[in-house]
Amino acid sequence: MNSVQPPSRLLLGPGPSMVNPRVYAALSRPLVGHLDPYFLTVLDEVQDGLRTIFGTRNAMTLPISGTGSAGMETCFANLVEDGDEVVIVAAGVFGGRMCDVAARLGARVERVDVEWGRVVGPAEVEAAIGRCRKVKLVAVVHAETSTGAWQPLHEISRIAHEADALFLVDCVTSLGGCPVDVDDLVIDAAYSGTQKCLSCPPGLAPVTMSERAMEAVRARKTKPRSWYLDLGLLGAYFGQQRLYHHTAPISMIYALAEAVAVVLDEGLEHRYVRHERNHHALMAGLACLGIYGAAQEGHRLWMLNSVTIPEGIDEAALRKRLLLDHGIEIGAGLGPLAGKVWRIGLMGESSRPANVRRLLLALESELRREGRAVPAGRAIEAADHVYSEKG
Amino acid sequence: MNSVQPPSRLLLGPGPSMVNPRVYAALSRPLVGHLDPYFLTVLDEVQDGLRTIFGTRNAMTLPISGTGSAGMETCFANLVEDGDEVVIVAAGVFGGRMCDVAARLGARVERVDVEWGRVVGPAEVEAAIGRCRKVKLVAVVHAETSTGAWQPLHEISRIAHEADALFLVDCVTSLGGCPVDVDDLVIDAAYSGTQKCLSCPPGLAPVTMSERAMEAVRARKTKPRSWYLDLGLLGAYFGQQRLYHHTAPISMIYALAEAVAVVLDEGLEHRYVRHERNHHALMAGLACLGIYGAAQEGHRLWMLNSVTIPEGIDEAALRKRLLLDHGIEIGAGLGPLAGKVWRIGLMGESSRPANVRRLLLALESELRREGRAVPAGRAIEAADHVYSEKG
Repeated sequence: MNSVQPPSRLLLGPGPSMVNPRVYAALSRPLVGHLDPYFLTVLDEVQDGLRTIFGTRNAMTLPISGTGSAGMETCFANLVEDGDEVVIVAAGVFGGRMCDVAARLGARVERVDVEWGRVVGPAEVEAAIGRCRKVKLVAVVHAETSTGAWQPLHEISRIAHEADALFLVDCVTSLGGCPVDVDDLVIDAAYSGTQKCLSCPPGLAPVTMSERAMEAVRARKTKPRSWYLDLGLLGAYFGQQRLYHHTAPISMIYALAEAVAVVLDEGLEHRYVRHERNHHALMAGLACLGIYGAAQEGHRLWMLNSVTIPEGIDEAALRKRLLLDHGIEIGAGLGPLAGKVWRIGLMGESSRPANVRRLLLALESELRREGRAVPAGRAIEAADHVYSEKG
Repeated sequence: MNSVQPPSRLLLGPGPSMVNPRVYAALSRPLVGHLDPYFLTVLDEVQDGLRTIFGTRNAMTLPISGTGSAGMETCFANLVEDGDEVVIVAAGVFGGRMCDVAARLGARVERVDVEWGRVVGPAEVEAAIGRCRKVKLVAVVHAETSTGAWQPLHEISRIAHEADALFLVDCVTSLGGCPVDVDDLVIDAAYSGTQKCLSCPPGLAPVTMSERAMEAVRARKTKPRSWYLDLGLLGAYFGQQRLYHHTAPISMIYALAEAVAVVLDEGLEHRYVRHERNHHALMAGLACLGIYGAAQEGHRLWMLNSVTIPEGIDEAALRKRLLLDHGIEIGAGLGPLAGKVWRIGLMGESSRPANVRRLLLALESELRREGRAVPAGRAIEAADHVYSEKG
């Protein structure tokens, strides 16, 4: 068997994103035990750093030992019992996944279907709550990776709390790339992944739960269906007791500690502005190539650009050439958007002007190869114009 | 926040074990996407290598994106539905954990309690099966990390299959350190962890399921309670279809690919002999220090040595000095064995003569510091005597 020798890729898909060399270095530092005093200080740092990035003072803030979807399952497995009514906004793959996860765990799901790429109306959420006897939870995906649209959280939070429900938010793609503000928005439970705007390899799911959510967990009549994701048990390891639950994924925690440090060294505000700027530059450049934003105007994500595909292009073949000839990964459309959009991620370390230019140049050359009349250099010029504004 | 700078530790506890430099190098190779053609070849290699180490031709052999306990939960979540009867041998922490995991998932658990450190009798398993109406599953921990004893699998497998039940085995601590032989022993489902005898950092759970087990999964009346661990969905990514389920933990898969390659480069037979030899050398040396095996004679694990603590020693203080003054981690006792045993792991890369000698030397000096009359050098001499035999 050969050693692992991956090809060089510029990761501009829906994740994983590029990883800072500091994070790779941390990842391969020598292991210590999961109860080693040194490791416990690293855990504390990770938890503190995640609180800052989530914008919360929640004690129960921790990295779950699984990918972002394990974060989703953690929140539902702890908050939902058989027969609990939950309202879920399904406006893409991940909203739909929430419905499946919650139903398996015994919830009665009141689903609010929203056209992919569009934003939910407060009235639709209110109507769904109205169809419940006693709603336990209202859940929504902040930044839908499958559509490139973001949902307004403030209004839904208000509506959820007026109904005395908990408010659960998927922040997988948003965390670290735009403000999340868990405490200000009165979000009771939120989860994320490491491989998007935190620019850490995939494998951990940051989760945070408000004291109100933890009261609901403690008031359960039955144990959570999942032992592995049981926040009561996990809290005894991640809290002051340091009781053994499962062996923490040491190397991944090292990497997340460094990734969190990289985020905080840059500063959250600076990081958000960088994501916004590179998004606008990319979109300006793409417009010169006849490629446009596909999600609802005014609700397009900075870190995940869902864009139209020029008519008559074999999109899969072009993506493959981008990957194999140019070393650039971009994402395909999913579900009803398959074949209709590309998903271009500018997340964390990937969100850099040099990467925007490299992609525009590669797309320009590939479109010219397809016989399209795209003016040489115009796309990069348009991007650079954005960078020169209020630069 | 500071960079990750762990102290140097010799890991001789219940896991994680030491990691080969080849594996650390693989861990920090640059990411590619989880659908990148290169990554799919790495996945194939990992799955093939795991089949060889498990001793199986099972198509459904894959690394679950979580630690060993997630492997346990995967097996139960897929094989158990509400009301299913399962027989579980509980002879330590991990057998007890199986009971908790299975009950949360709706199983009616027929528990076979066995004194910690002892071996279950076939008649006890038969009696438990006799108390069931229709037993779905018989489960046992092969190598109980909490007691240092191994259970005989051959007899239990025969009894389980005579009752037309599936046979599930926890191989977390045994896999890669002693023969597991899934196909020869007719094991229907098995799971392991990466941080024991595979000497990869913690974070993945190798799982294998026989065709008979997968038929039971496909014949379920309800979906598994866990979406994240649903083998039907996972099989569509890890099989030929390569359908997206969740983002695979790329870096950890790189590391496991290399760890599996290290195991196979050494050769399984050679590796097992090495584990056996180092175990005997350690035990010979410890006997000179008045420290003896605590598990049932003839059933002591090679890779996890549960040993007595000399009378009157403050065992926690001594373990702390071993860690902080000598840089050596060993494990404490758990549950009823807390304060009564130490658990010394010689797993994978940790199982080396130099490590055995270093631990014996450190223990000797610490016991002398406690005023014990331990003859200088005698322990290492006894260990070396074992190494010189049929060397």
